[in-house]
Amino acid sequence: MNTSIIRYILGQILKLQSLFLLLPSITAIIYKEDTFLNYLTVACLCFIIGYLMTYKKPSDTVFYLKEGCVATALSWIVLSLSGAFPFMLTGEIPHFTDALFETVSGFTTTGSSILSNVEALSYSSLIWRSFTHWIGGMGVLVFLLAIIPMSGGSNINLMKAESPGPSVGKLVPKMRSTARILYLIYLGMSILMFLLLIFGKMPVFDALATTFGTAGTGGFGIKNDSFASYSPYIQWITGIFMMLFGVNFNAYYFILFLNIKKAFKMEEVRWYFTIITLSVFVIFTDLMQFYPTLGDALRDSFFQVSSIITTTGFATADFNLWSTTSKTTLVLLMFIGACAGSTGGGLKISRLIILIKTIFKELTSYTHPKSIIKIKMDDKPIEHEVVRSTNVYFITYMIIFVVSVFCLTFENKDLITLFTAVAATLNNIGPGLEMVGPTANFGHFSDFSKLVIIFDMLAGRLELFPLLMLFHPEIWKDTIKKKLK
Amino acid sequence: MNTSIIRYILGQILKLQSLFLLLPSITAIIYKEDTFLNYLTVACLCFIIGYLMTYKKPSDTVFYLKEGCVATALSWIVLSLSGAFPFMLTGEIPHFTDALFETVSGFTTTGSSILSNVEALSYSSLIWRSFTHWIGGMGVLVFLLAIIPMSGGSNINLMKAESPGPSVGKLVPKMRSTARILYLIYLGMSILMFLLLIFGKMPVFDALATTFGTAGTGGFGIKNDSFASYSPYIQWITGIFMMLFGVNFNAYYFILFLNIKKAFKMEEVRWYFTIITLSVFVIFTDLMQFYPTLGDALRDSFFQVSSIITTTGFATADFNLWSTTSKTTLVLLMFIGACAGSTGGGLKISRLIILIKTIFKELTSYTHPKSIIKIKMDDKPIEHEVVRSTNVYFITYMIIFVVSVFCLTFENKDLITLFTAVAATLNNIGPGLEMVGPTANFGHFSDFSKLVIIFDMLAGRLELFPLLMLFHPEIWKDTIKKKLK
Repeated sequence: MNTSIIRYILGQILKLQSLFLLLPSITAIIYKEDTFLNYLTVACLCFIIGYLMTYKKPSDTVFYLKEGCVATALSWIVLSLSGAFPFMLTGEIPHFTDALFETVSGFTTTGSSILSNVEALSYSSLIWRSFTHWIGGMGVLVFLLAIIPMSGGSNINLMKAESPGPSVGKLVPKMRSTARILYLIYLGMSILMFLLLIFGKMPVFDALATTFGTAGTGGFGIKNDSFASYSPYIQWITGIFMMLFGVNFNAYYFILFLNIKKAFKMEEVRWYFTIITLSVFVIFTDLMQFYPTLGDALRDSFFQVSSIITTTGFATADFNLWSTTSKTTLVLLMFIGACAGSTGGGLKISRLIILIKTIFKELTSYTHPKSIIKIKMDDKPIEHEVVRSTNVYFITYMIIFVVSVFCLTFENKDLITLFTAVAATLNNIGPGLEMVGPTANFGHFSDFSKLVIIFDMLAGRLELFPLLMLFHPEIWKDTIKKKLK
Repeated sequence: MNTSIIRYILGQILKLQSLFLLLPSITAIIYKEDTFLNYLTVACLCFIIGYLMTYKKPSDTVFYLKEGCVATALSWIVLSLSGAFPFMLTGEIPHFTDALFETVSGFTTTGSSILSNVEALSYSSLIWRSFTHWIGGMGVLVFLLAIIPMSGGSNINLMKAESPGPSVGKLVPKMRSTARILYLIYLGMSILMFLLLIFGKMPVFDALATTFGTAGTGGFGIKNDSFASYSPYIQWITGIFMMLFGVNFNAYYFILFLNIKKAFKMEEVRWYFTIITLSVFVIFTDLMQFYPTLGDALRDSFFQVSSIITTTGFATADFNLWSTTSKTTLVLLMFIGACAGSTGGGLKISRLIILIKTIFKELTSYTHPKSIIKIKMDDKPIEHEVVRSTNVYFITYMIIFVVSVFCLTFENKDLITLFTAVAATLNNIGPGLEMVGPTANFGHFSDFSKLVIIFDMLAGRLELFPLLMLFHPEIWKDTIKKKLK
C-alpha cells in the first residue's frame, strides 16, 4: 500500500481543518467570547501537525481504490478527532466520548446530539457544530480535490470512496473540474438560501447556522425546540431547501447548462419527488384533523417529510406523538434517503431503483430462462459491477444495522428507541422515536453504545466499505510488510 | 403456459386433501364428536372435484420453471381454501377470513392463531390443525412426487418451487427417489419422536399433535399455555426434536448411508449449531438470576431458542417479559431461520452464509480489483446463479417485509407488535412480541391485516417467488392468449 500518499493527504486535511477552525475563532471575537483561545489553539496545532506531515512530498502519487478508501476513512476520523478538542477545551462538552459523538454527528451530517440544552452553548461552539455539517455535506476530500492540484489522475479513487451513491458521475472528464463545479453549485445554493432567510427577518447568526445545517442535510438546531418557534415563512424556505439539497447535483449541473429537459428526465429525481408527494399526502390526511388550518397541517407534514427523506433531521413538530401510520412512513423514509450525488444520506433512491429492478429481472428470468436482460436507468444499461455492488451494499447495510441494534440492547431500553437510534444514525438523520425522538437526545446512552453509534454515523456517511476496509487484514498485512522491508 | 398440467396437478392435490381429511374424520369417530360429518363432507367434495379435474390426462406433460411456480402457488392456495371449510362448517371458526388464516397458518407451518381459547376446540379440529403442519412441513408437492408417477422428467421444477433454500439438493439422480427418501426420513423421525413422548407418559393424542407440530416446525399448541405445563422431560424431547427437524435433511441422508463425517462437515449444519449454542448462552446468562435452578433456566433458554430458530413457535415461557437483549436475540433468530432443506422457515442459514461471503468477496475485490474470486461452500464453488438469486431473494424479502409492516400500520397498534407480527409470519414462526406475544393471538387484527398476514405466511413458506409469479402479467397474458386461440 502507498502509505506516503495517505500521510500526505491526512496532512492536507489537517491544514484544511485549521482553516475551518478560523470561523468559530472569528465568531468568538465578534461575540467577545473567551472560547476564542481554545479554537485558535486547536487551529494552530492542526496547522503545525499538518505542515509537518506534508513537508515531504509523497514519493509515489499513484493510488488505487484501496488507498482511496483508507485515506477517506482516516481523513474523516482525523477531522472528527481534531474537531472534538475545542468542545473539551471550552468545557462545554468535557467528556471525550461525548465531544467525539457531537463532532462525528456534525461532520457526518447526522445531527444527533448528546446535549439536552443547546442554547447554553457559546456562539462559537454553535457555529462550529453547524459548520461541520456544511463541510461534511459535500465531502472534505472533494473539497481537497477542488483546491489542491494532485497529479497521477487516480483522484477518482478518492472521489469514489467519499461520494454517496452507487456510482460516481463524472460531470466533466477532469475530476478536479467536477469537484469544483459541485462545490460552486453547493456554495451558490447556500448563499441563495441564506439571503432568503435574511429576507424573512431571521437573525444573521441563525440564518447562517440554519443554512449550514440545511445545505449539508445535517440537522443540528441552535434552539432547544429545533424549528418549532420560527415563522411559517422560514419553515417553508427551510423545508424547500432541504428538499433541494437532497436532489442529485447532476440535475443542477444539467440545469446550469440549460439542459433542463435532461434534468427532469432523470429517473432518480422523478422518483424522489414522487415519494415526497406520496408521503406528504399520507401524513397530511392523517394529521389534518388535529390542526386548526389545513395550511398548518400541510406545512408540518411537508417539513417533516423533507427533513427525514433528505436525512437532515430538523423538526417543527414532535412526530413521536403522531399515529403509527405517520411514524412508520417517516421510518421508511429514513431508510430510503435522498438522491445519490446529493448531500443526503440513507440507502439512496437510485440504489432502491436498482434493487427493485433486479427483482423484476429475476421474475422475468423465471418466464424466459434463457434471455439476457440488462437493467436500465435513464435508458442506459447499468453495468453489472454497479448492480452487484448495490446488492452487496444493501446486504452489508442490513447486517451492520442488525449488529448495531444488538450491541445497543445491553442498555435495556425499549426496542423502538434502539431500532430508531440506529436507523437515525446509520442513515445520518438525527432524531428517531421514543427516547431519541425529536424532543429528546442521545446523552442517556452508555459510552459503549455511543461508540457503536459513532461507528454507524461514519459507516453511513462513508457508505460502509471505506470504513470496513480499515478492518480488512490485508490492508495491515501489506503495510506492516512494507515497513519491515 | 401449459395450463392442462397445472389443472391435473391441482386435481391430484384435491384428491390428496380428501385423503388427509380422513384423519380428523376418524378422530371424530373415536371421540364420538358430531364434527365427523363436516370433515367427511369436505373430504368427499374434494375427492369428487379432484377426480373430475384429473379425469382427462394432460395432453402435454412437459413443464418449465414458471409452470412449477404457478402450480405450487395455486396448490397451496387450493389446499388452504379447502382445508378451511371444516372449521366453518363445525362452527368453531365461523368467519371465513379467520378460518383461512388458521389453515394457512397450519399448512405454512407458521402456527400463529386467531383463537384465544384453543382448548375449546373439538379433538378432530385440534388434530386437523396440527396435521396441516405435518403436511406443510415437508411439502405437499414433494409428497405428490413421491407417490404419483409423473413422466416428463421436469419434476425438478416442482421441487425447486416448493423446497426451501437457495438451491435444490438432488440426493439421487431421480427426483422421485429423492422425494421418497426425504419423506421416509421425515416419517422415521416423527415416529421416533412420538414413541419418546409416549415413553414420557404424554397422552397419545397430545403426543401425536405435538409430533405433527414439531416435525413440521409448525407450532400450533393444543393447550392455551402452549408448552408450559408439560413435564421437563417432554419439554427437553420436544426442544431437541425441534432442533433436529431444523437440520438440513441432506445431513440425515449422509448419516443413513454411514457417511457421518460428511454430515458433520456441512458448513450450514455447523453454523446452525454454533448459532444455537451462542444464543442459548446469551439468553441463559441473562435469565439465570430469575430461576430457582440453573437447569430450569437452561431448559427455558434452549427450548425458546430451538423453537424460534427452527421457526416452530412452541413456548414454555412468556419471552415477551424477558430483557431487551434476550428479546432481540430471539427476533434475530426469527430472521435467521433454520437450515435449507429442513422443514423450518426464515431466511435460512445457507443463504446467510452466502450473503456474508459476498461481503468478504466485495472487500477483497477492493484490494485486488482484477482477481476473480469464487464464493465457496463446503469447499465447492457456488454457481453465480445461486449467489445472484440469493441476493435478489434477500432484497425481495426485505421489501415484502417493509410493505407488510406499513400495511398493518392502519391498525394503529404499537410498532413492536406490527414489526414482530410480520417477522413471525413471514418467517413462519408463530408468536411475536407485545400484542402477538406467546400468550396472545392474532384475533384482534382487522380482516385487511389478516389478509396481508395470510399473504406473508404463504410468501414465506413458498420462498417468495412462486407466489409473486402469480402477479406477473406475462403469466396471465400468455394463458389468456392461449384460451382465445
